[in-house]
Amino acid sequence: MISIAILGNGVVGSGVAELIEKNINSIKNKLNKGIKISKILVKNKDKHRNSNNYRIITDKPEDILKEDVDIVVECMGGLNPAYEYIKMSLKQKKHVVTANKDLIAKHGLELLSLAKENNVKLYFEASVGGGIPILRPLKNCLIGNNVTSIKAILNGTTNFILTKMSKENLSFDKALKLAQELGFAEADPTSDIKGYDSARKLNILSNIAYNRNLDWETFKVEGIDKLDEFDILKSNRLGGTVKFIGISNIINDKIHASVRPVIVSKDSILGKVENEFNSIVIEGDSVGELAFYGKGAGKLPTASAVYADIMNVLINKKEDQLLFNKEPANLQKSFTDKKDWIVRIKVDNKDRHKIISKLSEKFNKVYIDTDDLLPKDEVFATIYSVYEKDLEENLRIFTDINNVKTLMIL
Amino acid sequence: MISIAILGNGVVGSGVAELIEKNINSIKNKLNKGIKISKILVKNKDKHRNSNNYRIITDKPEDILKEDVDIVVECMGGLNPAYEYIKMSLKQKKHVVTANKDLIAKHGLELLSLAKENNVKLYFEASVGGGIPILRPLKNCLIGNNVTSIKAILNGTTNFILTKMSKENLSFDKALKLAQELGFAEADPTSDIKGYDSARKLNILSNIAYNRNLDWETFKVEGIDKLDEFDILKSNRLGGTVKFIGISNIINDKIHASVRPVIVSKDSILGKVENEFNSIVIEGDSVGELAFYGKGAGKLPTASAVYADIMNVLINKKEDQLLFNKEPANLQKSFTDKKDWIVRIKVDNKDRHKIISKLSEKFNKVYIDTDDLLPKDEVFATIYSVYEKDLEENLRIFTDINNVKTLMIL
Repeated sequence: MISIAILGNGVVGSGVAELIEKNINSIKNKLNKGIKISKILVKNKDKHRNSNNYRIITDKPEDILKEDVDIVVECMGGLNPAYEYIKMSLKQKKHVVTANKDLIAKHGLELLSLAKENNVKLYFEASVGGGIPILRPLKNCLIGNNVTSIKAILNGTTNFILTKMSKENLSFDKALKLAQELGFAEADPTSDIKGYDSARKLNILSNIAYNRNLDWETFKVEGIDKLDEFDILKSNRLGGTVKFIGISNIINDKIHASVRPVIVSKDSILGKVENEFNSIVIEGDSVGELAFYGKGAGKLPTASAVYADIMNVLINKKEDQLLFNKEPANLQKSFTDKKDWIVRIKVDNKDRHKIISKLSEKFNKVYIDTDDLLPKDEVFATIYSVYEKDLEENLRIFTDINNVKTLMIL
Repeated sequence: MISIAILGNGVVGSGVAELIEKNINSIKNKLNKGIKISKILVKNKDKHRNSNNYRIITDKPEDILKEDVDIVVECMGGLNPAYEYIKMSLKQKKHVVTANKDLIAKHGLELLSLAKENNVKLYFEASVGGGIPILRPLKNCLIGNNVTSIKAILNGTTNFILTKMSKENLSFDKALKLAQELGFAEADPTSDIKGYDSARKLNILSNIAYNRNLDWETFKVEGIDKLDEFDILKSNRLGGTVKFIGISNIINDKIHASVRPVIVSKDSILGKVENEFNSIVIEGDSVGELAFYGKGAGKLPTASAVYADIMNVLINKKEDQLLFNKEPANLQKSFTDKKDWIVRIKVDNKDRHKIISKLSEKFNKVYIDTDDLLPKDEVFATIYSVYEKDLEENLRIFTDINNVKTLMIL
């Protein structure tokens, strides 16, 4: 009998329990062994009185670890106590499956080695892209490629908000409120809208793709909360749409990684991704451009990925444990290619002409948008074919950089 | 030392050799073992005098089998002699990797069992979707799902032709000629444009997805060679675009599978796939809609998938060999859902009114297109919300079915 312990009985945890129960017969046929969920760990047992699984619900962590458990499935989220529980589980030679991107982005290097040392598996497919198969294909199917870039919509909440802003002309605040009402955004949406959630997922993807150790806290990460209707208007005019993109690439062993709103063409793969869907575009030197698309969150999509990890622990026993390389990445803060940029500078009316003439002086090709619909107290410009580093340095010379908003055209 | 024999030195075979040579050091580091290409089998050795690998090129099949070869990589294509060579290789307990969809669609059931019996691997990731990781994700990552449908653009040649017809108003013949000039279409393009290539790939995908034995020769397969500018015009008017789609689904253990040109929305995932790219959309009951996108053919994209299979043979030694289920599918020729249809009926002018009145009599909701740009000797109708079976039966009653062209709106 295979024994599974689930940490957490929230959306993902209960979805995993549901999938295991649904597949209990097919697992038995496949493995010639029964499977059972032996314990489900929660914070407060009383809150789960109405759960079908109440008889196996516990709020004592020691119950999990003293049980004869084969696989610990961590669906609690957050760094602590998930970190401690996983560490203990691995040391006691239990396989671990987790959907926890915070944890893998922060402690993946240590925990994956710990799994290897103890000759057990630590799988985390669901931590990036929810139900989209991405980490295992990246590791197993692109092995003949040097991955050269990743561009991805990694957060469903913010993509839903941007879709509503773009298609229904909602303000950021109204779109956020709608997302919260529909259950797509949490009460505290900071980690989503500020980009921390996307940055952690980009961190995990990039660690695997480039085989270097990255730290998302050093990435350039800009949220979507500063976007307004004028950004949306301008992007529409350009035949584009604003998307919240995690992007990384590697050139001569230098890695750039950032998360920010950018304008992408409406006809591009990422431009077509709407609402709560995610998409990951990977460029490999042999395979060219590949894209993966699907639901990046939600009960059963996420549980589908967790469940596949559980089955891979049980079936593919000799699969190589993926490790993160401890060699630190040579990280570039600024984007590596010349790009076009929307630049908005808050100005007093008296300074408008000065700012415009400075822009024309500093940059080769500048277009000043004088549309009546745009705000009167800003210079609204498109600056063509400039490196990000040069853009920022040049702007800093003649204006207060705090009054400047830039938006990359990808 | 790991020894690889490659059957075929064409586009794919030479790409595989290139990738192995490029990665020779990283393989050595990973496996603590060297790797070499010991032999490359060709039909006529003299034609390969200028190949870098001439010293290991042979035209004697027995050279391959008597060598101490670990993995046979079949990149010849076609049924024979690939079938015989692979059978012999498996019986001699050599692992086999192949990109051959004809062979796997026809003999997969037998060859996969033969591999299992002999305790070796037979992998064929490159046979569907070229460089796109699809078979391994379908098997390993969607194991918690019942796949309910597959919709896919599986042939780059025909997608290129349709893109040119749609975007540049080329006729079918001109678009085909252009594809041939650019090397996207073969001198004999029958298998591509008639849909046999797509049907074989759909057969392989569906065998795995529904765990049943399908035979593409029993599918409804309609080529793209009958499409003309009026189909393109009409699809544009509807906000759609004509794509060549392999589609299968399962309802109550009944499977429908067909390959045909259909009209899809321009804004759908498949509607955005252009030129030689492929895309596979899979619906699972847990994960919802997933899509995979990339290059479905070409030297290095295909070699990337073959190479990944080779590495999986070497690294994941205990991976479950995928088998096809011998239980035959309960196949439905007609599409299972009510759909809207474009119906074109060749008529003598005197019969036009009779045909139109019959259409209105037989079908609930009919729109007759009277646009001046459409051909004068046809009734050009849109018929709404009808089962395919009912559509065909009803049309047969009052007109010569040979004079009818139908186009599904997906």
